[in-house]
Amino acid sequence: MPIQAASDTRPSGAVVALQAAASAGVSVCFANPGTTEMPLVGALDQVPAVRAVLGLFEGVCTGAADGYGRMLGRPAATLLHLGPGLANGLANLHNARRARTPILNIVGDHASWHLKYDAPLTSDIESLARPMSGWYRAVVGAEQLQQDMVDGVRASMSTPGQVATLVVPVDFQQLPAPQQVRRADQAVPAPAFSEARVTAVRQMLTSHAKVVFLLGDRALSERGHMAAGRIAAATGARLYSETFPARTERGGGLPDIDRLPYFPEAAISVLKDALVVLAGAIAPIAYFGYEGLPSELAPPDSLTTLALPGEAADQALERLAELLDAPTLPAGAACVEYTVPDGVLTPQAIGRLLSNALPAGAIVSVEGGTCGYPFVTASSQAAHHTILTNTGGAIGQGLPVALGAAVACPERRVFALQSDGSAQYTIQSLWTMARERLPVVMLITSNRRYGILQTELGRSGIEPGPQAQRLTLLDDPPFDWLALAQGYGVPALRAQTVEDLRFALAKALDHTTGPILIEMRLA
Amino acid sequence: MPIQAASDTRPSGAVVALQAAASAGVSVCFANPGTTEMPLVGALDQVPAVRAVLGLFEGVCTGAADGYGRMLGRPAATLLHLGPGLANGLANLHNARRARTPILNIVGDHASWHLKYDAPLTSDIESLARPMSGWYRAVVGAEQLQQDMVDGVRASMSTPGQVATLVVPVDFQQLPAPQQVRRADQAVPAPAFSEARVTAVRQMLTSHAKVVFLLGDRALSERGHMAAGRIAAATGARLYSETFPARTERGGGLPDIDRLPYFPEAAISVLKDALVVLAGAIAPIAYFGYEGLPSELAPPDSLTTLALPGEAADQALERLAELLDAPTLPAGAACVEYTVPDGVLTPQAIGRLLSNALPAGAIVSVEGGTCGYPFVTASSQAAHHTILTNTGGAIGQGLPVALGAAVACPERRVFALQSDGSAQYTIQSLWTMARERLPVVMLITSNRRYGILQTELGRSGIEPGPQAQRLTLLDDPPFDWLALAQGYGVPALRAQTVEDLRFALAKALDHTTGPILIEMRLA
Repeated sequence: MPIQAASDTRPSGAVVALQAAASAGVSVCFANPGTTEMPLVGALDQVPAVRAVLGLFEGVCTGAADGYGRMLGRPAATLLHLGPGLANGLANLHNARRARTPILNIVGDHASWHLKYDAPLTSDIESLARPMSGWYRAVVGAEQLQQDMVDGVRASMSTPGQVATLVVPVDFQQLPAPQQVRRADQAVPAPAFSEARVTAVRQMLTSHAKVVFLLGDRALSERGHMAAGRIAAATGARLYSETFPARTERGGGLPDIDRLPYFPEAAISVLKDALVVLAGAIAPIAYFGYEGLPSELAPPDSLTTLALPGEAADQALERLAELLDAPTLPAGAACVEYTVPDGVLTPQAIGRLLSNALPAGAIVSVEGGTCGYPFVTASSQAAHHTILTNTGGAIGQGLPVALGAAVACPERRVFALQSDGSAQYTIQSLWTMARERLPVVMLITSNRRYGILQTELGRSGIEPGPQAQRLTLLDDPPFDWLALAQGYGVPALRAQTVEDLRFALAKALDHTTGPILIEMRLA
Repeated sequence: MPIQAASDTRPSGAVVALQAAASAGVSVCFANPGTTEMPLVGALDQVPAVRAVLGLFEGVCTGAADGYGRMLGRPAATLLHLGPGLANGLANLHNARRARTPILNIVGDHASWHLKYDAPLTSDIESLARPMSGWYRAVVGAEQLQQDMVDGVRASMSTPGQVATLVVPVDFQQLPAPQQVRRADQAVPAPAFSEARVTAVRQMLTSHAKVVFLLGDRALSERGHMAAGRIAAATGARLYSETFPARTERGGGLPDIDRLPYFPEAAISVLKDALVVLAGAIAPIAYFGYEGLPSELAPPDSLTTLALPGEAADQALERLAELLDAPTLPAGAACVEYTVPDGVLTPQAIGRLLSNALPAGAIVSVEGGTCGYPFVTASSQAAHHTILTNTGGAIGQGLPVALGAAVACPERRVFALQSDGSAQYTIQSLWTMARERLPVVMLITSNRRYGILQTELGRSGIEPGPQAQRLTLLDDPPFDWLALAQGYGVPALRAQTVEDLRFALAKALDHTTGPILIEMRLA
């Protein structure tokens, strides 16, 4: 039932909106639509510049948009069905908010005139969206839809990036809308840095015996790594990356920058008595509060900011290196192939085998502590690669982020290093990878437990009885990862030994026509 | 690191809180905990009256609590990890809100003194919780925790039931708390009805040629069915149930009460020119707004309320039947076994075969339109059973609700009649069913599409091009349901013909030691 007169040849709001999004730089839409998004679904065929990618669950869509945005620095759209559809995507939007990833959520809503009747699917979308959205708007008319869309895209690309959520009632998608497409005329400004801050840090360096640089955001680019390495070599300062960076380059001869430890005791010891220079990172805070330990991992008066997240922290580091007359680094060490003895599979062996296997330009989405830490430790010796981590702690981020990165960068090989517990939250990612023929290599560490919870129970001094113990165990029944993969049309291999995994990784690298999953069974 | 002195033998806030919940009637906790819930996890072993059931994804926990609460009329608890954990459970809490199910969400939070530092997992939990929670409270001290818990349980059991959300910072879980357990001393009042309303309806009946009773909530109990049947027989009034009742009895000789049609054209025609008597139902509203059709399916001045949701609508109907001197109904017709000819599987055949197979006292969770409507049409002739439907339209409700119903009613057989698209949102339900050895029979209609979206595209007059079409199709790759079931430790059978399904249903009924899945492939 089209609601414009047959003689009205103006395009619908949905078409105009998608055209506006495309003009502003959106070329992918991760979608899980319902009835209130049908005009937008129909419009996708009139705006082929926007590629639709279907997710079976909304958390797959929002996580994929996060991975996409981290790689390209511009937003993918999501298309979600009213409040409950948005709600299913919120956990990964929480991670995206912490990663400062540009994302444009398009949330369909009831027809504007239908909302007041509180039909079954009605809910307070704004209340749901606000906590995870830096920008929020509900469209109030078809005439505004085009500008709203442009504003949403631009808002997502502010400095730093953010999640933008646009709620579009279905009647405004259907109504005819003005035809002239306004472009996002002002270019997004290039990131900059503060010369004054660089000078101030330069002066402070001389008066502190111990200096730690805490790097995040653009400081973890290749340029940032190289400049930070020069500074460290010239001054003796120590370099750490945020514990959970949105994106960091690594390997290929780049300086080996360790992550700030996760548990507060170790992090406090790293930062103790140091001048802490924040380059693209914020003040380090304990992940959780533990009685008797401070939340602030470094005293506030020990902190100084070289560059904020979103600013050109890499250029600020280069400028600081210049001021220090820090020599250029010698060519980085060649990649090291680890010798991993045959035998039972351990987290360390997994980390090293994956490090050995990475082709140059690989992207590795890391979620799950069991193998994540050993891999990152090993991978400084690997070929140049990009690591994406879980920035916000909402579990179920690793597989969708890998999916989105693979859509963003079809010329690069994508790996997802994942634990069995965390993979379950957005397991539906496998299907979209298969459907889109994305050659993602999924490595699932199977230890049949929530390892972190067992650790935390121990830290709390709780002696777990049968109920507590069972809440941390995934062994009854164990997941059959080969069967799960088959269920979603993904080929899979099981590795129980070093030899198995070496073989499986070689197989996986040869498999370029779609995803492949490797179950890595720890004893 | 326990934070009470060794000499302090008072139990922790977590223990006191769980004891309070148990005393107030909570005996099951559907849990997906994280670090900030560890004291509550540990406390579960000191309060064995509360059974912990682990879900791999929070939507499984909240949906299970919905199914549990619908069957028992008292809340299960959920245990969720901060804002993102709650967020993953919101879609099924939306359904529970529409079902008016009593649920007590227990959401752990950062230590109260840690919140201000905006650690990675921090978010605005209240903003997330409010849209789906009739009652919300954040605990402000260990001393209040016990009372807060009792208040939360009682709030969830208000008239009608509602979702109550209690946010518990981890430090208050750890701190010692007063030992005397206060009980919820006032009994929850029994539901009542208004005699005046009954009298008023009695008078109106005489002056209207066409009368439709729209039944919901307690009017769909066995008593409500029988009383409504008497009224219809005596007056010629027509009976309809809400389109998506939280719970309805059916079969076993009960009057056959059809559901109000889903699409507005048909619903409007049913209600046209009638006096519409609302018994436990609210004013009927179109599920979605369609241009040119009213949102209100019956004019407001045609509506009169006999009993509100939460009130004793069944007793009100009985009283009305008395006032009408309506004779007692003759004994209901015996169950009818449908003759289903061998051959290809159709939705109608599926509905009838399942109707034939239901043992007395079965519970059927219905989600997905393809087979849902034909089944409900058929099942008036089945043995007495209870049907639970998707009340709020947030997809992914059917499997968890079946899980929760099976935990609530171990003596009854539970079926989940489900479509392939909707089953994917909370597919992790299979694992918890296997783990808890719940003999749920899952019937998955495999039509490899989002059938409702294809219908809605057609209604919108959209001629789908390749992108729109692909967003409604699930055939590339098709799900392998046998493999998915195996992945979660659930035995499974595939049925492509009537003979197959007859065989599979017989097998499934014999399988009483855990869940079983039947993939029903439509052509």
